Amino acid sequence: MAILFTNATVLPMTAAADQPLTFTGSVGVEGHRIALVTADPTAVEAFRAAHPDLREIDCRGKLLLPGLINTHCHAAMTLQRSYADDMALMEWLNDCIWPFEARQTADDVALGMTLGIVEMLLGGVTSFVDMYYHENRCVEVAERLGIRALLGCNYFDTNIEEVLPELEDAVQRAAGSRLVKIAAAPHAAYTVSPENLLRGKELCRKYGLHYMTHIAETRDEMRIVAERFGTTPVRHLDALGLLDERTIGAHCIWVDDRDIAILAERGVAVSHNPQSNMKISSGVAPVAKMLRAGALVTVGTDGTCSNNDLDMLEELRTAAFLQKSATADPLALPAYETLRLATVNGARALGFAPGELGVVADGALADLVVVDMQKPHMQPIHNAVSNLVYCGKAADVETVVVDGRIVVDQRRIAGVDLPALYREVADAVGRIISRD
Amino acid sequence: MAILFTNATVLPMTAAADQPLTFTGSVGVEGHRIALVTADPTAVEAFRAAHPDLREIDCRGKLLLPGLINTHCHAAMTLQRSYADDMALMEWLNDCIWPFEARQTADDVALGMTLGIVEMLLGGVTSFVDMYYHENRCVEVAERLGIRALLGCNYFDTNIEEVLPELEDAVQRAAGSRLVKIAAAPHAAYTVSPENLLRGKELCRKYGLHYMTHIAETRDEMRIVAERFGTTPVRHLDALGLLDERTIGAHCIWVDDRDIAILAERGVAVSHNPQSNMKISSGVAPVAKMLRAGALVTVGTDGTCSNNDLDMLEELRTAAFLQKSATADPLALPAYETLRLATVNGARALGFAPGELGVVADGALADLVVVDMQKPHMQPIHNAVSNLVYCGKAADVETVVVDGRIVVDQRRIAGVDLPALYREVADAVGRIISRD
Repeated sequence: MAILFTNATVLPMTAAADQPLTFTGSVGVEGHRIALVTADPTAVEAFRAAHPDLREIDCRGKLLLPGLINTHCHAAMTLQRSYADDMALMEWLNDCIWPFEARQTADDVALGMTLGIVEMLLGGVTSFVDMYYHENRCVEVAERLGIRALLGCNYFDTNIEEVLPELEDAVQRAAGSRLVKIAAAPHAAYTVSPENLLRGKELCRKYGLHYMTHIAETRDEMRIVAERFGTTPVRHLDALGLLDERTIGAHCIWVDDRDIAILAERGVAVSHNPQSNMKISSGVAPVAKMLRAGALVTVGTDGTCSNNDLDMLEELRTAAFLQKSATADPLALPAYETLRLATVNGARALGFAPGELGVVADGALADLVVVDMQKPHMQPIHNAVSNLVYCGKAADVETVVVDGRIVVDQRRIAGVDLPALYREVADAVGRIISRD
Repeated sequence: MAILFTNATVLPMTAAADQPLTFTGSVGVEGHRIALVTADPTAVEAFRAAHPDLREIDCRGKLLLPGLINTHCHAAMTLQRSYADDMALMEWLNDCIWPFEARQTADDVALGMTLGIVEMLLGGVTSFVDMYYHENRCVEVAERLGIRALLGCNYFDTNIEEVLPELEDAVQRAAGSRLVKIAAAPHAAYTVSPENLLRGKELCRKYGLHYMTHIAETRDEMRIVAERFGTTPVRHLDALGLLDERTIGAHCIWVDDRDIAILAERGVAVSHNPQSNMKISSGVAPVAKMLRAGALVTVGTDGTCSNNDLDMLEELRTAAFLQKSATADPLALPAYETLRLATVNGARALGFAPGELGVVADGALADLVVVDMQKPHMQPIHNAVSNLVYCGKAADVETVVVDGRIVVDQRRIAGVDLPALYREVADAVGRIISRD
């Protein structure tokens, strides 16, 4: 079915520096792609005439923009949201997170993933990059809910023999999927041996997959990698030949100039996770500096244990504010540039060619979000982009389209009974906590 | 009319360290005050029997807590929301903010204040401290919308002769008001002479008013005060006898140990504004240190030019995250302590005795907020306080009571036509920008 959005304030994310960022007009969707982006009423009339069965959505007073792309999360960890906060790291992991995870089944993970995807869709996220275990079970979840997903099968030295077969199973399950792709996701350079880091990369080469890992997140990681390999995580990974345009590096906080140059040169997508970095005191990533060096910076929420939500609009706001604070420069990471990280740059991180995703442009994949600006906190509208990035809330997202399909309609999510989902989640959590 | 909230997850903010923070129970309101806080069904039955006309609100799956207290804002600046972002400070003030303000009328200010209060009420703010001009015109606005307000008449050396008569007018207009109090609000130690700082304080003594000013917000302020008076803003204000329990100091970023000791000893209420401080690169206030020193720290949003919204839940989240980041201590400013800043501490800043405001307790003023937790980003509920502070959104606020009156009912705000308000605001902004 075709869709026609009319009277929208369109924010295409394609404007050159000297052009206006928004225009009032219409956007048409045909199949999986955007087929019309226009301010011309005759073009709209022609689109209507060519698609007599189209669904028309009046977007007067609303902003229409590309869907947001969350490049790092552990969506199934919604089951552990607020389970353990305000604790020291090792106590947190040893007493709470790891015992909880050890008791989870693949069904639990699929359920946590469902809740996480529902939260993301309702907040305007149309693509996400995940990193967890039992990802083979999550292919179906992402497909059913209709979100674009890059599912990274997370492994450590301790569980690589279980995860790599899961990864190959996931690749089979995602074969032919328009929405879901699989990635190898070794945890980090300090928890996975060089040999095992390479085994994941070999599978990537075999199947044409993305590769993702945590890079330079904590001071402890820097110390361990220096002690063990005499270098930084970036240089260690690069020496192993692991960094390229199909690599996503989460965090990249403790990177020096040479590390940044390597990330930029190899085309690694950096996933900046400001709220997680703040909440668990990891440090502040040098985002402004990485952007100046030509690195591909994107934004992720990380998991709900260290955030504690999956709200990308809030994450963008924090990204901008944190850079302005940490650099003492109020001009750092302006609103529009921040939004580019979660659209244009996120699409590149997922491997899409320019113009293919992350923009409102003729021929691009139809991943679109409508944001209601008729709210007290979004008025007046001197600057729609500033209002969106500095004031917009997940709850302002009204309609979400992924791959041409309406998945959130007037804030209702297709095919999900929310109260039943909350009950299932509560039951699962009760079982996990009481399980021996 | 009496109100009865039943089946709520009650968060009274009165728990001692070894008690649970929440309980499932009921809260009754009679007139302006809370008259029942109980988990006992017979007490609820008795309250029902004694108030046959009561409004009963079923709060199953919802959190009931004291209303949030925003201790520093410039609410009328909503008219300038996103008018000028991502700019250098002096360009921002000279080219945008000051020319806009010079063209505003008292009617415009009252309109901007209306929009700001509406936004705050919908986000669970039941009391706010304002600092702007034409506050005499805003007494009626706050009264009409039913929010508790401490309105600070802001003056500089340049306009003190106009503002002090306005202040005395405001005092007359607020006489007998249950909700509105007036304060003198000299802008800062670097923009108001010692003599004029003292003239405001004299009026405070004469009428029994609060006093508020910006303190140690920027490095420039520190330099100017050092050059002019050879000391810090805190010590300069203290030497003039201006600091006491009826003083609110906004920001307090660049304070050293001796400044902090003075703020604590004098009982000054510090208003921490983390989002503004980040967005305009002012610095990071040493909140954890101030709390350890016994200072009364509270939270404010500041104005919508440097935030750009008036969302206190988001401000609390940022306060916690920023402290954890800046101190490299993930245990800094835990969720419950952060919420105390905006409830218990905020009430003290406004001059209320312990137990009078900012708590859900028998006999306290009935300023209450109901937050819906049946949302994907608030599930599951391992810890309701963490969910509220780390995941809660303004849009989750469902019902708001101020002084015993329901002012937000199922997210509808009593007596305000929102689309008409947006049109009025757009018209006013258009006039202001085009005015010569």
